[in-house]
Amino acid sequence: MFVTYQNTSHFFCFASCPRDKGFTTLNARPDLTAEYVVGIDFGTLSGRAVVVRVSDGAELGSATLDYPHGVMDTTLAATGAALPPEWALQVPQDYVDVLKSAVPAALAAACIDPAQVIGVGTDFTACTMVPTLADGTPLNELPEYADRPHAYVKLWRHHAAQPHADRINDLAFERDETWLPRYGGLISSEWEFAKGLQLLEEDPELYNRMEHWVEAADWIVWQLTGRYVRNACTAGYKGIFQNGAYPTEDFLGALNPAFAQFANDKVAHEIGQLGDAAGTLSAEAALWTGLPEGIAVAVGNVDAHVTAPAAQAVEPGQMVAIMGTSTCQVMNSDQLAEVPGMCGVVDGGIVSGLYGYEAGQSGVGDIFAWFINTQVPPRYFEAAEHAGQSIHQYLTDLAARAPVGAHGLIALDWHSGNRSVLVDHELSGLVLGTTLTTRTEEIYRALLEATAFGARSIVESFNASGVPVTEFIVAGGLLKNAFLMQTYSDILRLPISTIASEQGPALGAAIHAAVAANAYADVRAAGQAMGKLNKNVYTPNERSAGVYDRLFAEYELLHDYFGRGANEVMHRLKALKREAIAAPITGKETA
Amino acid sequence: MFVTYQNTSHFFCFASCPRDKGFTTLNARPDLTAEYVVGIDFGTLSGRAVVVRVSDGAELGSATLDYPHGVMDTTLAATGAALPPEWALQVPQDYVDVLKSAVPAALAAACIDPAQVIGVGTDFTACTMVPTLADGTPLNELPEYADRPHAYVKLWRHHAAQPHADRINDLAFERDETWLPRYGGLISSEWEFAKGLQLLEEDPELYNRMEHWVEAADWIVWQLTGRYVRNACTAGYKGIFQNGAYPTEDFLGALNPAFAQFANDKVAHEIGQLGDAAGTLSAEAALWTGLPEGIAVAVGNVDAHVTAPAAQAVEPGQMVAIMGTSTCQVMNSDQLAEVPGMCGVVDGGIVSGLYGYEAGQSGVGDIFAWFINTQVPPRYFEAAEHAGQSIHQYLTDLAARAPVGAHGLIALDWHSGNRSVLVDHELSGLVLGTTLTTRTEEIYRALLEATAFGARSIVESFNASGVPVTEFIVAGGLLKNAFLMQTYSDILRLPISTIASEQGPALGAAIHAAVAANAYADVRAAGQAMGKLNKNVYTPNERSAGVYDRLFAEYELLHDYFGRGANEVMHRLKALKREAIAAPITGKETA
Repeated sequence: MFVTYQNTSHFFCFASCPRDKGFTTLNARPDLTAEYVVGIDFGTLSGRAVVVRVSDGAELGSATLDYPHGVMDTTLAATGAALPPEWALQVPQDYVDVLKSAVPAALAAACIDPAQVIGVGTDFTACTMVPTLADGTPLNELPEYADRPHAYVKLWRHHAAQPHADRINDLAFERDETWLPRYGGLISSEWEFAKGLQLLEEDPELYNRMEHWVEAADWIVWQLTGRYVRNACTAGYKGIFQNGAYPTEDFLGALNPAFAQFANDKVAHEIGQLGDAAGTLSAEAALWTGLPEGIAVAVGNVDAHVTAPAAQAVEPGQMVAIMGTSTCQVMNSDQLAEVPGMCGVVDGGIVSGLYGYEAGQSGVGDIFAWFINTQVPPRYFEAAEHAGQSIHQYLTDLAARAPVGAHGLIALDWHSGNRSVLVDHELSGLVLGTTLTTRTEEIYRALLEATAFGARSIVESFNASGVPVTEFIVAGGLLKNAFLMQTYSDILRLPISTIASEQGPALGAAIHAAVAANAYADVRAAGQAMGKLNKNVYTPNERSAGVYDRLFAEYELLHDYFGRGANEVMHRLKALKREAIAAPITGKETA
Repeated sequence: MFVTYQNTSHFFCFASCPRDKGFTTLNARPDLTAEYVVGIDFGTLSGRAVVVRVSDGAELGSATLDYPHGVMDTTLAATGAALPPEWALQVPQDYVDVLKSAVPAALAAACIDPAQVIGVGTDFTACTMVPTLADGTPLNELPEYADRPHAYVKLWRHHAAQPHADRINDLAFERDETWLPRYGGLISSEWEFAKGLQLLEEDPELYNRMEHWVEAADWIVWQLTGRYVRNACTAGYKGIFQNGAYPTEDFLGALNPAFAQFANDKVAHEIGQLGDAAGTLSAEAALWTGLPEGIAVAVGNVDAHVTAPAAQAVEPGQMVAIMGTSTCQVMNSDQLAEVPGMCGVVDGGIVSGLYGYEAGQSGVGDIFAWFINTQVPPRYFEAAEHAGQSIHQYLTDLAARAPVGAHGLIALDWHSGNRSVLVDHELSGLVLGTTLTTRTEEIYRALLEATAFGARSIVESFNASGVPVTEFIVAGGLLKNAFLMQTYSDILRLPISTIASEQGPALGAAIHAAVAANAYADVRAAGQAMGKLNKNVYTPNERSAGVYDRLFAEYELLHDYFGRGANEVMHRLKALKREAIAAPITGKETA
C-alpha cells in the first residue's frame, strides 16, 4: 500500500507538519477559526483526498492511495484465473482503504485541526457497479463467491456487456422508447442495465443473490454514512432514470423474462439531489478517516460532473473536458435538446435548475500511454532521459517542431471504442498514411490530433443540436501539455481555458461538501467562491486551424466510413479475435 | 569502404587461402582443370561478387562491398543540400568500386586461379538510371554538375516522378496506346520515361547535355566491356520497348514538345538478348577485377530476373518471388496475356522463347525494418539480446505463438506505395484494429501478413488473367524466416519452394556468364545444371488458410476502398505533406 503525500499548504504549520519552504505566506499562522471540507476523488487507478478551505477553496493538503488491486483486466487477483477480453474489475475494499489512509494523510499534510472540518464530499468513476447484499456487503466479500468474476466491481471500462447493450438498444429503438433519445440514441455497454443483463445471463445464481446493484459513487457514501442514497447524476446518466421512471417491466421482460423486475428489485432506491447531504458521517467512518462523527456527507457524484463547479464553469455553453486516460465532457444548458451520440442529458445532472449534458471520449491519455508502452524505440527513452524530460514531453517537443500536416498521417482515436458520437465500443484504432520515412513522433502527434478531432466531432454534434459550445474548459492531467492544448484550440477553433487546480474532481467534491454542510446556498454559489479558472489561455492560430480543417475533413470521412456501417471491418475483426482465442489455430511452422 | 568476405568454399585450399574448418570435404585439392564464372549482383545498398563452378553451380567464394555513398534520399552527399521527398540517388563510382574490391576479394576467398574464369555476368536493381555523355561518363562526374541532383543516378526507388508518370499514363490511356496494356495499364514513376521527363522539366540544361539515358544494368556492362548494349529485359520492362518500337515522337511530343526526340536521341540503342555476350572484358576492367582480359561478359540483367534460373524456376506457372527490402515476382508463360497491374510482360524478358512477366511489391522487408527502427520498445531489444536472437526473430517467435486472427488487426503494406496491382506510389501504409491491449509483436505480425496479402493480390490477378500461378518459389533474405514462409503458404494456399543458394541473384548472373561464354546452349540448360532449389518446403495449413481467407477479404475491401478511388485520402495526405513542407505553419505554443 503506497500513500503519496502532496502538501499544497500555504500555511506556516506547527512543527509536526511539513513546511512549504519555497512559499512566502502572508498568513503565517494556522487559522483556528476557519472551516474546512474534505473532497475525495475515486479515480480509475487511485483515490485522492484533498482538504479545502470553505471560504475561498484554498487546497491545504492532499494524499493519494493507489488501489492495492488496481484494475483487474487480464486475471482475477483472488485466483489468478484469466478474464475474457474487454473485462475490467475492481475490489471494493480498495475504496475503503482510501478512506482509511488518504484522508488521514491529507489532514496531516494540511496541518489543520480535524474538528474544523464541516463536511465531506466524494466523486467516483462511472458507471462503476458494485453487486451487494441488502446491507451493502459486496458479493466478492462472501467467501463462497471470491472466485466468481461477476461478484466483483465492474469498472466503467468493463466493455464485455456490448452484446447486451446492443440488444437493449435494438429493442428500445424498435419500441420507440421515449428515454432512448435522451442518450443520443444509444445506451452504452458501460452502464447499469447492460452490465446488469450480462450478470443475469452469465451468472444467474449471483444475480439472484444480489439485492442491490449499486453505483460505486453511492456505495462509498453508504460506507461513510451507513445510508444508501442513489445520486441523481448517475441515476440519470447511467441508470436510465428519466422523468421519474426507469425502463418498464414490460421492456425489461422482453429482453429476458428473468430481467423484468431488475429495475424494481435491484436498482430503484431513494434519489438524492446533487449538493444535498446524503447523511452524516458514521462513528465507524469517523474512526477510519479521523474526521468528526456527524458532519455532513454529500450525495455521491461523478468525477467529471463535480469538476464543472471546480472550474467555475456551470453556465450554458461552457463545455468542461476532463482530460486524463479518457475524456469526459459536461455542459449545462437551459435548453433540453436531443444531441446525437451524447452520453446523456439529465435535468439537474450537474447543477440543479439546468439540464446537464454529458459526452465522452473513451480513450485519450490511455492511447498516448499505450503508444509509449508499445511503440517507442530505445533511443527516444535515452534521449528523453538525457534531456531530463518525460518521454511524453520529449516526444511532444519533437512532434511540435514540424509544420501542421507535414507528417502526412491521419488516425482514429478509437482504441477503446467510441463513446460519443457513435457510441460503439467495438470500434478500434487506426493509423493511415505511414511511409518508410514516418517517424515515431509523427505517429504520436497523429494520435494527439486524433483525440482533438474526436473532441471536435462532439462539439459539432452539440452545435448542430441547438446547444452550442462557446468555450472549452480543460481540467485533468493532460492540460499540462501546452502543445496538446494549442492543438485542441486550433482544431476546435475555440478559446481554451484551464482549471487552476491540479485536483479538480477532489476540489469539486469538496465544493459539494460545503453545500451539503450549508456553507453556501447552492453549488453555483460555492463554485464561484471556491472554484479556480485561468481564462482563454490558448486561442486558435488561424493558419494552423485552416490546415487542421482539411485534416478534420479526412477524419470525418474515415469516421463515417468505419463508424456508420459502410465497412464494419472493426466489428468483424473483434468477432474474429474472440473466435480465434476461443478456438485457437496456431500457424504450423515447418522447418 | 568495407569489404565483407564470405568464404563459401568447399575446398581444401592452399595455405594462403582461408580454410572452412567445420566442413568435411571430399574434394581436398583445388580443381585446376575446372572452369569458373563470376556473377556480380548490384543491390540497393551493396554489390556482391560470387565465384561459381560452371559444371554444377558450386559457390566457391564471395565478397560484398557496401556502397560508400549508400542511398542519398535526404541530402546530396557532395553538397549536403536537402533533397525533396521521394528522391533516391546513387553515385556511379560506387558500382565501379564493387568491381575493384569485391571481385578480387571473392576470387581470393574462392582459392582458384583467376585464369580459370571464363566469363562474368551482372545483375542490377531496376529501373535505376544513369545520365551520361556519349562515352558513358556520368554527368555527376563533370565538376560543373557535381552539385546538381539530376546529374546523379536515379535509383529504382526514386518516386519523385509520379506526376510525370501520371501524365504519361493519362495520355497513353486517352490515345489508347497499344503498349499500355503490356504494363498492366499503368507505367510506373520508377521507369525510364517518367524519370526522363522529370529530368527534362526540372533541369533542362542537364537534359540537353545528356547524350544517353542508361540503365545502370547496362552502364556497368559498358564499364566492363567498353561497349554500350541495352539488355532486352530492362528495355522491355522499364523502357517501353515493345514489338521492336518505343513510344512515338508524336506521343512524346504531346507530353512536352522538347520530349519528342527522347526515345530517338537518349534511349534507343543496340539491344542485346539475355544470355548473349555484350562483349569481352576490357584491359582496364581486367586490371580492376583481376580477371582475364577478353573473357565473355554477359548482357546486363535485373536482379529478380536472373534469379529465376538460379532457382531452376523458368517453367510456365513457376512464380519466383525475390523477397528482400522489396519483392519482385517474375514468371514465364507461353501465353501472352494482359494482367491488370503487372509491371510488364516482355517477350524473352527472362529467358528467350517465353513471355516473361514481372510484378512487384515495393515495400516488404523495408516495412519490417522500418517498424523495428521506429516502433519497438526497449524491453523487446533487451529480451532479444538476452535470448541471443535477432530482434526480427524474437518478435516473430512471440507473434507466432498466437492463434491466426487473434490480434484483431489488418494492415495495408503500402508504406512504399503499391507497385502491383494498383501501380500507385502515392498510396501509403495503414494499421487498423488497434486497441489498448494491442501488443508490439501483434502489429509486427499484421505487417508480415499484409505483405502476404499483397502477394496474394498479385497471384490472383495472374490467375484471373489466364496465366495461372502453380508454384511459389522464394529467393532473397526473407526466406530465412520460417514463420513468414508458412504464413505466405497459408495465405497464398500454395506450396512454397525455396532457393537453395543464399546468393540467388549473383548465382543467376553467373549462370548468364556461363551461357555467354558458351558453356551451355541456353539459360534454361544452364539453370538446370547450376541452379539450386528445395521443393515444397512449406505447404498450406488448411485451418489457418481458412481464417486467413477471412482476413484477406478484409484486406481486399480496404485495398479497393483506398486504392481504387473511393477515398483518395492517401493522395490528399501526401499532397498536404508536400504543401506543408514547402510553406510551413508551425503550431503556436502559448505557455
